Amino acid sequence: MTDKELDGIYAFAVQLGKDAGKMLLDAARLRFSGGQPAQEFVEKDNAVDIVTKTDEEVEAFIKTSIAERYPHHNFIGEESYSKSPSRAYLISPTSPTPTWLVDPLDGTVNYTHLFPMFCVSIAVVIAGQPVIGIIYAPFLNQLFTACRGRGAWLNETQRLPLVREPAVPTLPRNAPGGCIFACEWGKDRRDGDDGNLRRKVESFVTMAAEATGKGGKGGMVHGVRSLGSATMDLAYTAMGAFDIWWEGGCWEWDVAAGIAILQEAGGLVTTANPPEDHATAKIEEVSLGSRLYLAIRPAGPSEFESGRQGQERVVREVWRRVRELDYTRPDFEFETE
Amino acid sequence: MTDKELDGIYAFAVQLGKDAGKMLLDAARLRFSGGQPAQEFVEKDNAVDIVTKTDEEVEAFIKTSIAERYPHHNFIGEESYSKSPSRAYLISPTSPTPTWLVDPLDGTVNYTHLFPMFCVSIAVVIAGQPVIGIIYAPFLNQLFTACRGRGAWLNETQRLPLVREPAVPTLPRNAPGGCIFACEWGKDRRDGDDGNLRRKVESFVTMAAEATGKGGKGGMVHGVRSLGSATMDLAYTAMGAFDIWWEGGCWEWDVAAGIAILQEAGGLVTTANPPEDHATAKIEEVSLGSRLYLAIRPAGPSEFESGRQGQERVVREVWRRVRELDYTRPDFEFETE
Repeated sequence: MTDKELDGIYAFAVQLGKDAGKMLLDAARLRFSGGQPAQEFVEKDNAVDIVTKTDEEVEAFIKTSIAERYPHHNFIGEESYSKSPSRAYLISPTSPTPTWLVDPLDGTVNYTHLFPMFCVSIAVVIAGQPVIGIIYAPFLNQLFTACRGRGAWLNETQRLPLVREPAVPTLPRNAPGGCIFACEWGKDRRDGDDGNLRRKVESFVTMAAEATGKGGKGGMVHGVRSLGSATMDLAYTAMGAFDIWWEGGCWEWDVAAGIAILQEAGGLVTTANPPEDHATAKIEEVSLGSRLYLAIRPAGPSEFESGRQGQERVVREVWRRVRELDYTRPDFEFETE
Repeated sequence: MTDKELDGIYAFAVQLGKDAGKMLLDAARLRFSGGQPAQEFVEKDNAVDIVTKTDEEVEAFIKTSIAERYPHHNFIGEESYSKSPSRAYLISPTSPTPTWLVDPLDGTVNYTHLFPMFCVSIAVVIAGQPVIGIIYAPFLNQLFTACRGRGAWLNETQRLPLVREPAVPTLPRNAPGGCIFACEWGKDRRDGDDGNLRRKVESFVTMAAEATGKGGKGGMVHGVRSLGSATMDLAYTAMGAFDIWWEGGCWEWDVAAGIAILQEAGGLVTTANPPEDHATAKIEEVSLGSRLYLAIRPAGPSEFESGRQGQERVVREVWRRVRELDYTRPDFEFETE
């Protein structure tokens, strides 16, 4: 693909994100602008129906727009994927044909309750790598965009991470101390012997506890934040506002755009689950379909280490404190073209 | 006080909030606009110093402005209070003289990291009651305002709660199921036998767990959110985006503006700590200086109960699931005039 072709796809994707985000906000406004007399908007249950309808309409709009403009590209959207029986990973690691990975509405629970942390997420994946990412949170008027080699941006004018001059901040020497740790409680609330809820909470507490706590593993992070949107978590990590995001259970359309933006901003994404030799294991690039994600913000060099070394140090400090999560999917597959 | 006098104070407070919020954002922009060459902005440690300086400057600006316009009013600000040796509660429950309760920067950790959930909080308290509340989050461009009898507003045009027509939504019949639960990890991270961290986390988990979990007390809330700002939590509860906010440890300047806005929007605020007879105890109005807060969003009536009855039902459902928190302050005192 030529640079010019990629620029064209990027510009098209940005506009698509803006249009889709406007659809989300317009639909939300129907519920609070007072313009709708219908009693169907009274109950939260009905709010859920509105959300589902909006979700489907926005995905259909995006899918149709892409099919008209790029009929030979692949398309995977959360809504349509959810309706298929398979949970296979459908993205070829080698194909040069672009695949669009779309979550028309990330932060569905937030949207239902009109908490502003919801967004549309659009990614373009080529040869298995997210190269374009668009995240638009219309209630916050925050648009995050990136294309490989073109930088990552907030509202098209502010380069990410936010603090860049005279240098991108280093990661704290006592990390995870000094860090904002973003994490989500998720939907898996089984209170079993050792389910994901328990594993997550134990990990959160170890990250939060004073340094002498939890058998000397207390992370004493600067803050723990939960927004209810994996996509927004990644966007704020790219911005530099969150230092660490650790999560399991989300899907590739939740994270692909965020990963593209974070990587273009200079961040690192790897797996949430600590390898056995977590202190020395090679830190692999994230596997997009793994459902297990650990992201570290962009970081500048210090006199002791490069930015990447700092990020790897923080990855190991997180791995040392978190439990392995149990999220699986069917065997790796991809469609033939 | 006449209505006209109160209107005058309200208009003045709104402008003060806007000006103070602009100061916060301008100071933040120094760190990311690239306009500042100084290396002092590189390190997060220095970011903390910048924040402290901004905090103090904004409080001084607000305090001076009030003293010029209303020289006989009382003023309590977070920064100046923190420097005094006493932790007494200084607000008279009966005095008609207005007291301004000001947090120049709520969400300090967020501000340090440039996570947008920070704000200025300005309240006017008369006879112990918060009657005016201004919360302005400049990075989000969200201004929340209320004055008793004048409604609560987002950006001066959108009445709160957001969903009002044809009616304010009822609270879910299976609450806390269906609810967004906002809570904060706070600064007390002692990993002792039964410290606040443990009590909080146990409470969070009981609220989050499946209904059959935690000995049948699982709350299975729709979502758990932590923003790192008590003030923003209250603002979003007033908006209707959060259904429940439960917290201990914050101070009156963190919550006074939020309580004014939430109450004017139709919300309920009481104590975080469950009374022994939590199923039947009278639900007291919040004590502003108690450091223990439980807020429920505005709610409309259903065919089964009034809005207030629904809120009280949810209060009891929360009390049933949370632990008592241990935050104290010196004996109640107030200055003589």
